[in-house]
Amino acid sequence: MKKIYSFTKRPTISATSTIVGKEEKNGPLGEYFDCCRDDTKFGMQTWELAESEMVRMAFDTVLKKSKLCEDDIDIIFAGDLINQCTSTSFGLIDKSIPYVGLYGACSTFAEGLMSAAVYIETGFADTAACATSSHFCTAERQFRFPIEYGCQRTPTAQYTVTGAASAILSTKAESPSGVYVMEALPGIVREFGIKDANNMGAAMAPATADTIARYFSLSGNKPSDFDMILTGDLGAEGFELLKIMMKQYGYEMGTGFNDCGLMIYDLKNQDVGAGGSGCGCSGVVFGGYVMEQFMSGAVKDVLLIGTGALLSPTTVMQNLPIPAVAHLVRLKKD
Amino acid sequence: MKKIYSFTKRPTISATSTIVGKEEKNGPLGEYFDCCRDDTKFGMQTWELAESEMVRMAFDTVLKKSKLCEDDIDIIFAGDLINQCTSTSFGLIDKSIPYVGLYGACSTFAEGLMSAAVYIETGFADTAACATSSHFCTAERQFRFPIEYGCQRTPTAQYTVTGAASAILSTKAESPSGVYVMEALPGIVREFGIKDANNMGAAMAPATADTIARYFSLSGNKPSDFDMILTGDLGAEGFELLKIMMKQYGYEMGTGFNDCGLMIYDLKNQDVGAGGSGCGCSGVVFGGYVMEQFMSGAVKDVLLIGTGALLSPTTVMQNLPIPAVAHLVRLKKD
Repeated sequence: MKKIYSFTKRPTISATSTIVGKEEKNGPLGEYFDCCRDDTKFGMQTWELAESEMVRMAFDTVLKKSKLCEDDIDIIFAGDLINQCTSTSFGLIDKSIPYVGLYGACSTFAEGLMSAAVYIETGFADTAACATSSHFCTAERQFRFPIEYGCQRTPTAQYTVTGAASAILSTKAESPSGVYVMEALPGIVREFGIKDANNMGAAMAPATADTIARYFSLSGNKPSDFDMILTGDLGAEGFELLKIMMKQYGYEMGTGFNDCGLMIYDLKNQDVGAGGSGCGCSGVVFGGYVMEQFMSGAVKDVLLIGTGALLSPTTVMQNLPIPAVAHLVRLKKD
Repeated sequence: MKKIYSFTKRPTISATSTIVGKEEKNGPLGEYFDCCRDDTKFGMQTWELAESEMVRMAFDTVLKKSKLCEDDIDIIFAGDLINQCTSTSFGLIDKSIPYVGLYGACSTFAEGLMSAAVYIETGFADTAACATSSHFCTAERQFRFPIEYGCQRTPTAQYTVTGAASAILSTKAESPSGVYVMEALPGIVREFGIKDANNMGAAMAPATADTIARYFSLSGNKPSDFDMILTGDLGAEGFELLKIMMKQYGYEMGTGFNDCGLMIYDLKNQDVGAGGSGCGCSGVVFGGYVMEQFMSGAVKDVLLIGTGALLSPTTVMQNLPIPAVAHLVRLKKD
């Protein structure tokens, strides 16, 4: 079962930042994002460089919003979906900040928040950042087919969010948000034999259910104790499976239970399959929409469960199943 | 400059494990490794599954050597070079242990030791593990050319070590080694314009020099305070450049200064180019040879600097430079 991490140092979110593409801007949460570009290349020569540019923009924006400078950041935790996490390493290439690279696929934002809070808890860092990104075109090219091929997508396939998000946690800075990371629970890799890379939601549901159920069991909390319980990102198929699994674990999840992949797009009117995915998805939904809900007083206690499918194009071609992991962070405002 | 992490909880290495291939067994350190297989596929169908099998073997071996069971491990930090770190996720797929995925290229072993020590420092974990791997054939296939193509290598190219290593750190277990992680210093991404993927040593030297020089400057220590200062892995070309850079920083590094990539092979008699590389290299050199030196009393104070080149085949094809990072850990035995 293992332990829930209860942070004593109150690692508080100084600011979050969100950079998105056109499709995300046109979705139901469009108004909550800091910056949108219609140009999928963000002014760069390649989509890969565009994703790096989004990471750079997200980090520069979060610094500005926090009224901090590069030198104030003791450490940054970051990663993305692209091979060898190069969107991140090129996005942060000019920053003179100690850098810990993460790989958690779409769970990276939650993994980053947890890591930042843990390092702050030791006292080795006072101010820590996290960042993550995904881009529809880089992900399609790498994991599926060339965009130009115009391949038809299956109904359970998710649509990779073009988005980058960053957050700064601090014990020092005066934070207008007052939102802090109260608890975290790292995920355990689970694999239930799903091999369909176009149904990653199904592959991720078991690891997600495992983490949420472990959290409730260890903490004694119940779903109704929270204003929101957000997974990111299972999409329509995976989220339905998760609801069934949570019932099997004995939990009625209530109305605050939702999935970032379902929230970011209008599934009826946008051509996005089963909903959003990608590291950027839960990052921008949390950094944009959820933070705004905290600021307005609409929510005070939120569970964010980042969910990652740990597959690669090679493992798919080799007909291997899809392992997944889900990291949980509890965000609170008193 | 940022802070050196000085661990107060004395995270002590219960055991390390090392699994290698034939070339590594035939090298000067061959006698120090736990297990070697002549079969590059380790009995599996593909090289990728072979690398996962090595990760599984390394973790099972370190558990056995520590006299611990799976349930005793509070958290594991792991990663590798292969796209989306699937060698690791498939290697640990059956372990019911909270898992934090890392991406630090060849710096992953040092990044893992640092992360494990940090989580122990918070008290959230009493016993934490790290693991990493690389495999000559998976790396060649992914980063360079198909093995079957028989491509000629340039003299500065490094040879990816077929090796997996794991370590368990604990404040609880009685440790026969007595070796503990005393300090750590996370690296900063540096990039000096090197674009040659067959000269990764040159690309990594600036980040390595930066971390070592920052460590001496922050700690007030000097090279002669240590029995060994090991980088992993710059190879012949990169290590010569590093020596020049350290002189420019004003440090005479002395006789204990060496590189895991140079130590693992006999560069004159093995056809390994500029020496070893890959996440497994510094892992098995430390886990096998250096731990043995600690046990025999030959060394008592060692700096291990894991060095990672944060490139991908895509960034190479797009003619981008190679960013690098180097994480430092100080290992001590009283």
